[in-house]
Parts: sequence; C-alpha cells; structure tokens
Amino acid sequence: MAKTTYASLLSEVRAKRPLVHHITNYVTVNDCANATICIGASPVMAHAGDEVAEMVSMAGALVLNIGTLDDIQVGAMLRAGVKANDIGVPIILDPVGAGATRLRTYSAQRLLHDLDIAVLKGNVAEIATLAGAGGEIKGVDSQGMSGEPLAVAKKFAKDMGIIVAVSGPTDIVTDGDKALLVDNGHPLMGRVSGTGCMAASLAGAFTAVSKDYLSATAAAFASFGLAGERAAPQSRGPASFKVALLDELYRLTPEELEKGARVREA
Amino acid sequence: MAKTTYASLLSEVRAKRPLVHHITNYVTVNDCANATICIGASPVMAHAGDEVAEMVSMAGALVLNIGTLDDIQVGAMLRAGVKANDIGVPIILDPVGAGATRLRTYSAQRLLHDLDIAVLKGNVAEIATLAGAGGEIKGVDSQGMSGEPLAVAKKFAKDMGIIVAVSGPTDIVTDGDKALLVDNGHPLMGRVSGTGCMAASLAGAFTAVSKDYLSATAAAFASFGLAGERAAPQSRGPASFKVALLDELYRLTPEELEKGARVREA
Amino acid sequence: MAKTTYASLLSEVRAKRPLVHHITNYVTVNDCANATICIGASPVMAHAGDEVAEMVSMAGALVLNIGTLDDIQVGAMLRAGVKANDIGVPIILDPVGAGATRLRTYSAQRLLHDLDIAVLKGNVAEIATLAGAGGEIKGVDSQGMSGEPLAVAKKFAKDMGIIVAVSGPTDIVTDGDKALLVDNGHPLMGRVSGTGCMAASLAGAFTAVSKDYLSATAAAFASFGLAGERAAPQSRGPASFKVALLDELYRLTPEELEKGARVREA
Repeated sequence: MAKTTYASLLSEVRAKRPLVHHITNYVTVNDCANATICIGASPVMAHAGDEVAEMVSMAGALVLNIGTLDDIQVGAMLRAGVKANDIGVPIILDPVGAGATRLRTYSAQRLLHDLDIAVLKGNVAEIATLAGAGGEIKGVDSQGMSGEPLAVAKKFAKDMGIIVAVSGPTDIVTDGDKALLVDNGHPLMGRVSGTGCMAASLAGAFTAVSKDYLSATAAAFASFGLAGERAAPQSRGPASFKVALLDELYRLTPEELEKGARVREA
Repeated sequence: MAKTTYASLLSEVRAKRPLVHHITNYVTVNDCANATICIGASPVMAHAGDEVAEMVSMAGALVLNIGTLDDIQVGAMLRAGVKANDIGVPIILDPVGAGATRLRTYSAQRLLHDLDIAVLKGNVAEIATLAGAGGEIKGVDSQGMSGEPLAVAKKFAKDMGIIVAVSGPTDIVTDGDKALLVDNGHPLMGRVSGTGCMAASLAGAFTAVSKDYLSATAAAFASFGLAGERAAPQSRGPASFKVALLDELYRLTPEELEKGARVREA
Repeated sequence: MAKTTYASLLSEVRAKRPLVHHITNYVTVNDCANATICIGASPVMAHAGDEVAEMVSMAGALVLNIGTLDDIQVGAMLRAGVKANDIGVPIILDPVGAGATRLRTYSAQRLLHDLDIAVLKGNVAEIATLAGAGGEIKGVDSQGMSGEPLAVAKKFAKDMGIIVAVSGPTDIVTDGDKALLVDNGHPLMGRVSGTGCMAASLAGAFTAVSKDYLSATAAAFASFGLAGERAAPQSRGPASFKVALLDELYRLTPEELEKGARVREA
C-alpha cells in the first residue's frame, strides 16, 4: 500500500460525500455528526425500527455505537445491520463499555456474531473483553488487556475475518495478517468525551469510499490524530481543543494528511 | 410591513422571554436550547406523553422536529400539538428528512394534516416532498425540487393555509400571497449540524411574540443569517463558527438586525 | 471546616478519578460528561434497566437528573438508586423543572422519598416546590420562592436528613444545621443551557471522594463558579463562555480553588 492512499482516500470522501448512518449514543452524537461533516461526509442518525433499513439503503456506511444502549436500540441496530449486510454497506461497530456490564458485553457480542462487521473499533479493554483476553473495565474507559494488544487484536481479527482497530496512544489497525500502527494523536484527545465515537464515525466515512477497510480505517485514525496534533497548540483546555479538533479535521487537505500521517506496519 | 418590524420583534423576544417548547431530535437539541437562549427566549425540552400538554400550556411556541423520530415521539408531538392548537400556541414543524424514508414522509404528513401548523420550515427537498413536487433526498440533506421553489412553496402555503419557509442560500418565507426572500447567511452554516434545527427554534421564539408569523419567521431567518455573517470572519472552521454564531446571536441588537436584515419581497 | 478542605477535595477527585454514573437528560448530557472529565472524574451514562445496577456498582456517585424524564427513565433511576443506596454510593438529585408539570413534581418527590438522596440540587423554584414552599415555575427556569430561601432550604434539609443545595447568584448549601453560601459565579452562567446540570455532575465528582457531602457540594459550586469567573473575561458570548468555562475547570488547581473559593457560613 503506497502512502499516497491516504490522500486519495480523503479526496474520495470529499468528492463522494457518502452518507454515514449512525445508531449511536445520545452523549456524543452531536460531535459524531460534526466530525462526519468536517471530514467531508454526510451524517444521518436514525434509530426507528420502521426506517433503519430504508435509511441504511442510502448509506455508504453504518456506525453502531452502544454507548447508551438499551434493548430497543440494539434491536434497531440488528435490523439496520442485516440490511447493511444484504447490500454490502460496511458496518463499523464501537462496543463502548463492553466488559463494564453484562448487557454491554452481551450486546456487543451479539452484534459481532449476528452481523458481518467490517471494522470493530474499541479501546484496549473493550477489544480484550470481546476477544476473550480479559481486561478490566471501569465504566467506559479502558484499564488494560492481558496479552500483548497487537497479538490479541491480530488473532481476533483473523478469527473473526474482520478489521480490528484498537485506539490508544498508538492505534492498532489489523486484518489479522497485516497490522498498521498509527502514531498520530495528542493526549488531550483522551480528555474529551467522544473522541472514540468520532473516530468510529470517521472510519465510517472512509470505509464508505474504499473496499480496502484496513487502509480506510488507518486513514480515519491518521486524519483524526493529525487534526488533534494541530489543534493542541491552539487550545487552553479540552473544550477549546474539541473546537479546534473539528476545525482542523475540516481544514485538513489530502496533501497534509499524506505528509502528516504517521502510519507504520507492525 | 415596515422594515422596523424586525427590530421590534427582536426587542419583544428579549422583553418577553417566551418559553419555546421543543420536541426534537437528540443530535442537535443542545444547540437548539442555546440558540433559543441566545436570541433571548427560554427553551424547554419535554417529550413524555404525561407532561407535554401541561408544558405546552406555559409555552409561547411549540417546535416539532422529526430529526430522530420514532412512534412514541410522534405520539407525543401529536398530543402536544393538539393542546397547542386548543390554546393558540403556534407550532413550528421541521420535517427533517421528509422524503428520505417513508416513516419520515408519513410522519411529517400526519403532523401537517392532523395539527394546525403555523410555520412549516424545511429545506427544498423536504418541502418539495410534502408539497408533492418531487425532489430527491439523501439522508437529511436536500437535493433539489422539481418546479421553481418559490412557486411550489407559495402554492403549498396557499393550499395549506400556513407559512412555508424554505431554507437555502436565499431563504423563502411565504404565506401563499406574499413571499419574503432572506439573503442573510453564510456558506459555513451548511457545514454545521443543526443549523436548520436552530432556525426552527428561532422561528419559535419570534412567532411566540407576534401573530404576524410571516414577518416573525423572516425575522428569525434574518437574525440567524446575520449572526452567521458576523461569525464567519472570526472562524477557522465549522466548530469555531458554531461558537461564534451563537455568540453573535446573543450580541445582535434590534438596531443591528434592522440595519443588517436583507429581506426583500419576491 | 478549614478552608483547606476545598484544595484537598479537588486533589482527591484528580487522584481517584471516580466514576460518576449519570441518568440524565439528552439536552445537556454532553456538557455533563465533559464537565465531569474537566474536574478530573470519569463520566458514564447508562440508563438501561438491565445494566444500571451493575454500572452503579462501579461508580463513586450517581447523578439523577429529570430534565427530559419519562416513565422508563424514572424507573431506571429508581433501580439504579436502590442499588446505590445498598452499597453506599451517594446520589445527587437534580429535579429539573419540578413544579413546572405534575409529572416532574411527582417524579422528583418519588425519587426523593423512595431513595436516600445525598444531595438535592435545584434552583430556588424547584427546591421551593419540593419543600412545599410555593414558588412559580416557567418551564425549567426558576421564578422565586415564598419564604426566605435559606430558611426554607435549611428546614427542608433538616426534615429530610439530606444536603439541600440551591443554585443562584449566591448558592446555598445546607445540611439543616450548618449552611454555606457560595459567592463564586458569573451572570453568563445563567445564559448557557445546562450549567445547573453540570453543577450536579461536579457535586457527584466531589461527593464520590468525601463523606462530608456539605463541603463536597460547596467545593463543587465554588469550583464551577470560579471557573465561570475566569472564563467570562475570555468570552464574547454564551457559547465561547461555555468553552472557556470547561477549559477553566480543567485548568483549575487545588491551590487556586483554595484561594479563590468564596464560601462563607450563613
């Protein structure tokens, strides 16, 4: 994969402006909508059982985020997901808080097993839980993983036949064979509610324009991390950082992404 | 209508601080609340079937927005709307995504036909759908209208006996006889999630203080567009623009609105 | 209570990073999450009946806010609250709009009477309603209290055996015997949706680290008010003020809180 991929992927997002259908939590949903717009795609949020299949038919990607799940919402996710699978729309699953409660773990497992997920994106503890590699969760924040994260992610991706993306100071993106490590980012991203959710939205935007989900997900992480790097020096704290982060996503050019992406093979 | 109307309308909003009851989507609800405060009114969000009628009794306007609708929410909208009609509280309907899914189209039609709507505010595709003038929708963004928008809006307003407001680079506000075109605004408004929703909130604030819903809606669009014009030069991207947009709404004086409103008769 | 308490309380929050479980409204939930992070704690929002008890087991405090209540949500609050009481997790109740509708008044009363509430935080009208001291409510904003607020709050706290916190230009925090008056704050805090909700989140963060709920609640109000004072000169209006408010919460050091807290005994 030539490094030029990232520039062309971002150009594609901006040119095609794919619709990214979200079924997501009510905490960070506005940030997801705005991040999706800033990268160049078009967000829609719809959860009613009666419309999710119809909405996903127009979408380039479907983002499922269980941050404030309940049974009705998970039902809508399954319904949307089945349709997405039928018509080849990639699904990004963000299993927020998997491991923290049985409902979250079970719901994430169900979505992962009943649907063909394209990209599973979580923090180290969420991925560890779903991969059966232990980990200890406090609320929706991660506390660690038993076993080396890269190895766990790789094996899980291989077993499931999906892309596994582990967010962290260095993000891991793997299809089970190849693994990309994304070094872009800034510690302030961990001080803003919803950066993980926004990263999943961006993965939706990029996977909507390329069947190479591995590169697309790496492009999403690199774009977001790079925007964070540029936002930090303008910020006095997490709130001004979030404003600048979104602005920088919007301002990011394909050329700047190409030059600034710090992605290496593991 | 003398141009001084806009100044006096804004003064009225600031003096009376009307309660604007919203039943709206969970994506942009916070922006709606803050836009309502910044223009000088007082927002309340309440959707429980058991309280909507009581809440709307205290309100100066009711804003119904189907951006993340489901059956329960539409039921609450109907219940609140019936009460609003009983006691003469104007209803602003924002049919987000009408045309995109059958549920949205049908729900918007039902609200429009079962309730006396004061102002129907949508983008060109949503209005076209409801007016039966075709249009092609992608998610909740507009793609166009068959037939000249002004003529379609005017006819639909006339047929329905309501104000039809079509947002766009030039906003159209018509009662079927008279049509006002509002030229205020800035392209960045199209890059922020929820500007349409916020415009409907502002229409709620203005219609709460004047029975002249045509002028009130034009005042809402002009205020918002003018705030956008002032916000743009302070902004580095959509997120800092949104912050500045709300600040500028708050800072806008009646005199500045009077001077800056670019409203013309069609 | 030595004034040094406030510095040590903030240090404790930052050191322990307690989980603050929210069941709250969808209007200001993102601000609550970010305020919780900025003060140094960790937010989680979870409302599903099947997980609230499990989630609260990991929490240091539970914040219940009825800003956009419905029956299902109140049921989840009761379920979470019973567990919190069982295991000694303090509950902060924010009875948004109590007095405005019967559903809100009744639901707040039910939560207050069925659960052991640690801190009841409301505006003067909400507290007056629940204390049976009249008051007149418009939407979710306060219009006043019959009887002197301090006396009403003190008597109510005494009768209920809880901390009563009344937000206002001068905040009142009382356990029925002792009463603390917090003079920190800025008028712009009244022009941002959700400052009351954020104050409750901060009370959650502080009560999670100290059994002295009186001081903890005063520390929350003082921190928030002080951040507001520092944010105001950087702001052009309510939106830039909110950004600066969160940044300043994050930047606030224990020493600065100690020095800047304007808390006096009534």
